[in-house]
Amino acid sequence: MSTPDPVHPTSVRLRVFSLNCWGIRYLSKHCAQRYTMIGDLLAKEQYDVVLLQEVWSEKDFDALRKKLASSLPYGHYFKSGVIGSGLAIFSKHRIQDTFRYRYSLNGYPYMLNHGDWFGGKAVGMAVLNIGNTTAHFYVTHLHAEYSREKDSYLPHRVVQAWELQHFIRYTSAEADLVVLAGDFNMHPMDLGNRLLRTYADLRDAYVETPKFDGCEDGGTMIAENPNNDMVPPEKGIRIDYILFKGSSRLELHCESMSTTKGSVLDHAFPYSDHEALTAELRLDRVAQDGVSQDGSNGMGPLARGSDRTAGKLAELVDIVTEARTEVKVGLHCAQGMCYTAARTGVMGLVLLLLELAIAAVPWLALGAPGPFPSVSFYLLGALCFLILLTTALLYLFYTMEIKSLQEAEDQMRQAVGCLQERSPWRNTAALNVMDALAGGKQVETWDFYSENQQAEM
Amino acid sequence: MSTPDPVHPTSVRLRVFSLNCWGIRYLSKHCAQRYTMIGDLLAKEQYDVVLLQEVWSEKDFDALRKKLASSLPYGHYFKSGVIGSGLAIFSKHRIQDTFRYRYSLNGYPYMLNHGDWFGGKAVGMAVLNIGNTTAHFYVTHLHAEYSREKDSYLPHRVVQAWELQHFIRYTSAEADLVVLAGDFNMHPMDLGNRLLRTYADLRDAYVETPKFDGCEDGGTMIAENPNNDMVPPEKGIRIDYILFKGSSRLELHCESMSTTKGSVLDHAFPYSDHEALTAELRLDRVAQDGVSQDGSNGMGPLARGSDRTAGKLAELVDIVTEARTEVKVGLHCAQGMCYTAARTGVMGLVLLLLELAIAAVPWLALGAPGPFPSVSFYLLGALCFLILLTTALLYLFYTMEIKSLQEAEDQMRQAVGCLQERSPWRNTAALNVMDALAGGKQVETWDFYSENQQAEM
Repeated sequence: MSTPDPVHPTSVRLRVFSLNCWGIRYLSKHCAQRYTMIGDLLAKEQYDVVLLQEVWSEKDFDALRKKLASSLPYGHYFKSGVIGSGLAIFSKHRIQDTFRYRYSLNGYPYMLNHGDWFGGKAVGMAVLNIGNTTAHFYVTHLHAEYSREKDSYLPHRVVQAWELQHFIRYTSAEADLVVLAGDFNMHPMDLGNRLLRTYADLRDAYVETPKFDGCEDGGTMIAENPNNDMVPPEKGIRIDYILFKGSSRLELHCESMSTTKGSVLDHAFPYSDHEALTAELRLDRVAQDGVSQDGSNGMGPLARGSDRTAGKLAELVDIVTEARTEVKVGLHCAQGMCYTAARTGVMGLVLLLLELAIAAVPWLALGAPGPFPSVSFYLLGALCFLILLTTALLYLFYTMEIKSLQEAEDQMRQAVGCLQERSPWRNTAALNVMDALAGGKQVETWDFYSENQQAEM
Repeated sequence: MSTPDPVHPTSVRLRVFSLNCWGIRYLSKHCAQRYTMIGDLLAKEQYDVVLLQEVWSEKDFDALRKKLASSLPYGHYFKSGVIGSGLAIFSKHRIQDTFRYRYSLNGYPYMLNHGDWFGGKAVGMAVLNIGNTTAHFYVTHLHAEYSREKDSYLPHRVVQAWELQHFIRYTSAEADLVVLAGDFNMHPMDLGNRLLRTYADLRDAYVETPKFDGCEDGGTMIAENPNNDMVPPEKGIRIDYILFKGSSRLELHCESMSTTKGSVLDHAFPYSDHEALTAELRLDRVAQDGVSQDGSNGMGPLARGSDRTAGKLAELVDIVTEARTEVKVGLHCAQGMCYTAARTGVMGLVLLLLELAIAAVPWLALGAPGPFPSVSFYLLGALCFLILLTTALLYLFYTMEIKSLQEAEDQMRQAVGCLQERSPWRNTAALNVMDALAGGKQVETWDFYSENQQAEM
C-alpha cells in the first residue's frame, strides 16, 4: 500500500502480486471470463505492483489497462518475438522507464506443439520511484518443463536463468530495492533457481515470510486446480516465485505471503492454471550510521561476514560449475543436431543432382524427350528441394543455438575462474569434489583449473 | 599503460585501441596478411585494452590470442547469431566478467548481399578491475549504412542506438569508468550518436582531446585507404568512435588521440578498410571532499548545474522525439511489408487451391486421367508452395520486427513523458515546436502529451 506502517512508523509497505494468466485466446479454457475475474480482483485489491505472465494477447492487456485505470494507472506490455513476451506490469506508482532483455535461447521453432519459441521469452524491467526509493521490478517467464524425467529444454532454461541473473546483477546496482517475480518453471532447488538466488543475491519471499497462507509447500501448480492438466505430484509443485533484495540503503522484509488455493469463491473456475502470489514487503530505510530508522540493525539480512562470503563463493563455484555441465550437455546435443541437419542437407542435394543427371542424360544422349518428366520425377524433385530448404533453415537455427550456448559456457568458465581467484581457499576444485562426494551430489568439476589457465593463456 | 604519470603523480593512464578489422575470410582483401599486421601492432604497442569489431572468424581471434599471450593475456570473443557478433576484446588486466546484449533488430535475413542479419550484432561488455577501479568496457558494431540518401536501415540503427544507451546506462551504475568503442556506422551528428552521447552521458574522445594526430576531421573511412571501396566524401567520414565517462568517484580525461592514416609504413596495404583509433585516457580519483588528488576540482567535467540539467533535459526530449519519429517511420514500413507478405501468401494459397480444383475436377468428373498432370501443372504447384513458404517466413520475420519497433517506440514515449515530468518547463512540446521552427529542423512532436495521457490512462 506504500503507506506508513503503525507498528514500524517509518516503514513503508508494498503489496506485490504475480500471476501466470494462461491467456491463450481460443485455446485456454474460459480465457475471457478468467480475464474478467483477474481484472475484478486487481481493481478491488490494493496492490502496488502487479506482474503478469502469459498475457499472450495485447488486446487483453489493453482491456485490463482500461479496467485498472483508476486503481493501477500505470502499465507496460513487453513486446517481443512473434506473439509477444506475454509479460506485463501494472503499477500504482509511475513507471519511469522500462527495459527488456530477450533470452538468447528459448526452445525450437519447429516444436509447434510447445510453442515457447514463438513467445519471444524475455525479462522485462520497470523502474519505479516509490517516495525517495528507486525500485526495479523484474518480470519473467522461463521455458516450460514438459517432462521432468527427460527435459530436453534444460540447457535452454539454465542459460535463461544465467542471463537473468546477469541482467539483474548489472541493471540493479542503482536500485534501492529489487523484486523479481514470475513463472520460472523450476522447482525450488532446481539449478537455475539456486543460480538466481545465490549469484543475484535474491531472497525467496516464500522462504522468508513469517506468515504464509496458501497451498501446501507453497505449491503454485496444484492437483486441485481444475484448469491444470499438467498433473503435478499430489501436493503440487512450486514453480512461481517472488524474489527480492534490498540494498545498503534499504532493508527489505517479507511480512506475509499468500497464494490462491485452486478455487475462487463464487466462481466456477480459478483465475488460471497457476496459483496467484501476493507478497507484502516492508521497506525500512537504513540510516547513515548503519542503524535503520526503526532501531534495528539496518544491515541485518544483508550483513556479510567473511566466513559467509567464503562459504557463498564456494557454493557459487559449485552452482556455476553444475550449470556449465548442463550447458555442455546442451552444446553436445546441438552440435549433433547441427551435424545431422548438414548431413541430411548434403543427401538432399546429392539426390537432387542425381535426379537432374537422370533427366539430363537421355535429353543429351537422344536429343528427344524420353519417358521424363513423370509424376514421380517431379514429386521426388520437390521432396529434395524441401529437404534442402528445411535442413538449411535448421542448420542456421542450430548454428545460432551453438553460438549462444558457447557464449554462456565461456561466461561461466570466466565466472568460475574469477570466483576462485577471490576465494580464500584456492584449491576449491578439490574441495568441490570432496563436497560433492560427501553430499552424494553429482558435480563435475570439468578440471576447470587447467581449462581456465589454457583459456587465459 | 595503467602506470602513474610523472606530471599527475596520482593519476593513472590507460591506452585504449579500437579497430574494425574487416575480417571476412576469403572475401576481404589480404585478410590473413592484415591479421598478421594487426597482431604485430598489438603485440608491439603497449595497449591496456583493445576492442575489435568484424572479427568474423573465431579462428582469427584464437590466432590473435595466441600471439598476444604475453602482451594482452586476457581476451573474450562475443559469440552471437549465425556467424558471430564479430566483437572481441583483449586486455592487459584480468577480465572479471562479460555480458552481451543482442540487438532486437539487425537488418533482414534475405538481404544476403548485405549480410548484417547473419552477424548477430550486439554490444559486448567486459568488466575489468584496474587497481581499485571498476572499469566497464563496451564494444559494438551497429548496422551498416549502405546508402546515405536512401537508408532503409535507419530505424534499425536508431533502435540499436536506443538499446545501446539503455544497456550502458543501466549496466554501468557501479562502474568507476566507462569506455564504449566501435564502428557505429553513424556520422558524428547523426541521431543515434546524439542519443548515445546525451542520454548515456558519454563524451567523445575525438572532441575532448587537446592533442590529435590523425586524418582530417578525425575521419576513419577515408578515400586514401585503398581497401575502402565505399567511396566516402573526399576528406573522409568519422564513423568509428571511442566514447567515455567517469563517475563521481573518478574523473576521466582524454589526453591524446590518434588514428592511422590509410597507409602503414613498410607495408603494401593498411590494417583494414577503416582506420584504427587509439586514445590515451587519464584517470584521476576524486577525493571524498570533491577535490581530486592532483588538486583540480574532481567534479570538473561531471559537474551539472541546474541550468545545464534543464538544457540537457530539453535536448534529450528533442532527440528522443526525433528517434521516435524514425521508429514510427520504420514501423509504418514494416507493417506495409507484413501486409504485403500476408496478401502474397493468400494469393499463393488461392492459386494452389485453384490448381488442386482444376486437377480434381476432371478426375472427379471423368473418373479417368485427363491431360493432367503436365509439366506446367507441377511447376506451378511448386511455385505456389514456394510462395506460401516464403511469405509465411517473411510474415513471421516482419511480425517480430514490428514487435521490436513497437517496444522501442513504447519505451521512447515513456521516456519523453518522464523527461518532461522532470523538466522545469512543463510545456516542452510547444517549446520543441518553436525550437524546430527556429532551427528549420523537421521535428515532429507527435502530440505526445495527449498520447501519453491516453496511454497512461
